[in-house]
Amino acid sequence: MSLTESSATNIAKAGSFASRQLAILSELDRNEALTALHEALLANKNAILESNARDLEAAKQSVAGGSLSHSVLKRLDLSRPGKYDDMLQGILSVRGLRDPIGNVTLRTLLDDGLTLEKVSCPIGVLLIIFEARPEVIANIAALSIKSGNAAILKGGKESTESFVTIANVISEAISKTRVPKSAVQLVKTRAAVSDLLAQDSLIDLVIPRGSNELVRSVKENTKIPVLGHADGLCSAFINLDADPEIAVNVIVDSKTDYPAACNSLETLLIHEAALKNVFPLVAKALIAKGVSLRCDAPSKTALEENLTPTEADTLQDAQGSDFDTEFIDLTLAVKTITDIEAAIAHVNSHSSKHTDIIVTKSEEAANLFMKGIDSAGVFWNASTRFADGMRYGFGTEVGISTNKIHSRGPVGLDGLTIYKYLIRGNGHRAGDYFEGEGGRKYKHQNLQIL
Amino acid sequence: MSLTESSATNIAKAGSFASRQLAILSELDRNEALTALHEALLANKNAILESNARDLEAAKQSVAGGSLSHSVLKRLDLSRPGKYDDMLQGILSVRGLRDPIGNVTLRTLLDDGLTLEKVSCPIGVLLIIFEARPEVIANIAALSIKSGNAAILKGGKESTESFVTIANVISEAISKTRVPKSAVQLVKTRAAVSDLLAQDSLIDLVIPRGSNELVRSVKENTKIPVLGHADGLCSAFINLDADPEIAVNVIVDSKTDYPAACNSLETLLIHEAALKNVFPLVAKALIAKGVSLRCDAPSKTALEENLTPTEADTLQDAQGSDFDTEFIDLTLAVKTITDIEAAIAHVNSHSSKHTDIIVTKSEEAANLFMKGIDSAGVFWNASTRFADGMRYGFGTEVGISTNKIHSRGPVGLDGLTIYKYLIRGNGHRAGDYFEGEGGRKYKHQNLQIL
Repeated sequence: MSLTESSATNIAKAGSFASRQLAILSELDRNEALTALHEALLANKNAILESNARDLEAAKQSVAGGSLSHSVLKRLDLSRPGKYDDMLQGILSVRGLRDPIGNVTLRTLLDDGLTLEKVSCPIGVLLIIFEARPEVIANIAALSIKSGNAAILKGGKESTESFVTIANVISEAISKTRVPKSAVQLVKTRAAVSDLLAQDSLIDLVIPRGSNELVRSVKENTKIPVLGHADGLCSAFINLDADPEIAVNVIVDSKTDYPAACNSLETLLIHEAALKNVFPLVAKALIAKGVSLRCDAPSKTALEENLTPTEADTLQDAQGSDFDTEFIDLTLAVKTITDIEAAIAHVNSHSSKHTDIIVTKSEEAANLFMKGIDSAGVFWNASTRFADGMRYGFGTEVGISTNKIHSRGPVGLDGLTIYKYLIRGNGHRAGDYFEGEGGRKYKHQNLQIL
Repeated sequence: MSLTESSATNIAKAGSFASRQLAILSELDRNEALTALHEALLANKNAILESNARDLEAAKQSVAGGSLSHSVLKRLDLSRPGKYDDMLQGILSVRGLRDPIGNVTLRTLLDDGLTLEKVSCPIGVLLIIFEARPEVIANIAALSIKSGNAAILKGGKESTESFVTIANVISEAISKTRVPKSAVQLVKTRAAVSDLLAQDSLIDLVIPRGSNELVRSVKENTKIPVLGHADGLCSAFINLDADPEIAVNVIVDSKTDYPAACNSLETLLIHEAALKNVFPLVAKALIAKGVSLRCDAPSKTALEENLTPTEADTLQDAQGSDFDTEFIDLTLAVKTITDIEAAIAHVNSHSSKHTDIIVTKSEEAANLFMKGIDSAGVFWNASTRFADGMRYGFGTEVGISTNKIHSRGPVGLDGLTIYKYLIRGNGHRAGDYFEGEGGRKYKHQNLQIL
């Protein structure tokens, strides 16, 4: 892991070269590097925490000076109970995941002695840009090595000291394994990032992990495909036949379980026929949890007739922009909808294609909603908060993608792979296959995947 | 299919709206639209050929005036024997393909009553830009409808008359089915295309079908993902242990079967130990087929010692740029290589990640090459020309992609799909799952795919 700021082209080229060496390593080779990584981070815990303490000291001064938020300071701190152990355990968890490389997903006999295979392989070179959390570097290094990809890492400036030390430890550990040293490279300056974002012939995928602003800025400034999501504007639709208890459970959890998360609820659509029997119960439960409701006129009227004056006092009038706003806070926009088609149309034009849900007793309505909504996750009678790689059982999560190609929704290790087609023949010529006399015919026979 | 040039935003919005209607249609609905398409193109053959004749007349004048090539004229002509019938048959073939939509690839029991499904679905809105061949419009319309995607089509100006008539026929046919009319829209002006390429929030994928220049220009001018390949620089490596007969068969077919194709051979790498025993046989066979060899010094020397003077007279000296050139002609660059690692390194830095092959008796060498080469197709003892969707048995080919994400190599109907995650619950809350007392645990149990 080079810490000198050589040019972006050299970094990208070194990454590209390392990626080709990684691609020929066995699962054992890659897992051994993860073992070495784990051991080195364990052995160098004190040195890393000392560097982290220097970052924390500088950050505390910035917080005191008002130039840094307290939440960033908290994310920086590797010495919080359990955090370092979680980082170490994360490396072992990644090591234990099923090898994503070399999986055959298609085998076809094209003709006698001529077989086609579709095999998973690493993408190549990943550029990963992240913010304050210093433990992300270990997680990302582990994910990259496991999936056979070279990684170029850029962390936030607040954690520079931690990064440099962790990077040196990783570099030292890797150098004793078959994984090439430049499989994981660290860059420090912001200028280097903009230069790297221009290396679209050498870098295959950018993964920004951090704020909406970070993701948006990366997407604006590169032709390299970006895996991630800038926004998480999730919506729920309460249909006319919604079970009140289910509606309360699902909506309250979606909104209040962790309001700052990208998979928390921001917009609630209510069928007009559910305004009086279901909605007031949901609203009471939300208000009891401290949620501010920004209602359109019909939904506000319905509540004013069914809430206590104290509850009703908390209601606000919705503005048009509220239905395009990711509040990431205890605020929820509420809109009255005449039918499920209007709900689908509203979600498709206002939500961010992340996760949207319907509460209904009708399987037919649920299926229409799940087909009609153009989002990575569409749930029936379940909280938006389930949209998460760990909850899906992926073992790890590289990020959540709102892209429409490659990977969508919570992305596991598979999202860092692509495939190639291999043909094994015995001197076969394409020119021998043609219609008519003397021409050979393709067999196109599916073969068992070994 | 609107033929008025409304603004790019309106076209993209109409496509986006249509895509959501398409997404809820059944396979039967989509197939019925393909039947209607087929019948209408059959019934309107005369009118379409009349329009095509007007395009041909204009194109003949351009050819006479020197502003158009004869090959474009030939591609324009829908009245050539079999061409119209092939177009019609193509629609029925697409109709007969397995439905790419609604396929469940993962089912997980998250907890009692809480299931996760990963289901294939349409991408959304495709922008397809193509050149002279007017029959492509029918093919693309069929592929889009079958895969549930809305298509915005832009054809070359030489075939405007044919396009307009075919587009009207398609539009009329679709309007009698459940597929929305704006599921297939045609745009005519070049200006409209650059405006459409800016609609990255509404258009999900661009597919340019045509010259390298077209693809390169599209890639340069959009942030929308592009499916395709600008270049097809394919390489072959003859290892020291190559079987001479296999080498001759595979190399001659790769180079001469169809030199203008993207999957034809452009660079030949020879292990220095194969220069005298294998290479002269390959060179003689290539020269007999009219291939010009551009050789580096060692390979030229080897040939001069082993060819007849007449054969040797055809040899040329390779320039450095020859190893980065897609000749798409009967010209082949030849380079001497000291070992397989050098061959892999050369291919990874010079070829276009399309298709590369090795000729060797060694399974170990073949496996190293297949892992080490970063290309969509890597073949052992088989011609580069097999890199083709029909030959792979995909039934159709949307294009050949040299991208590193989403779709790679020959892309079938699956390349026009993505997936979404569906959860079906019964009021489940994410907040109920946590470590410790009273917390629920995820089951993460793989379920049979129905």
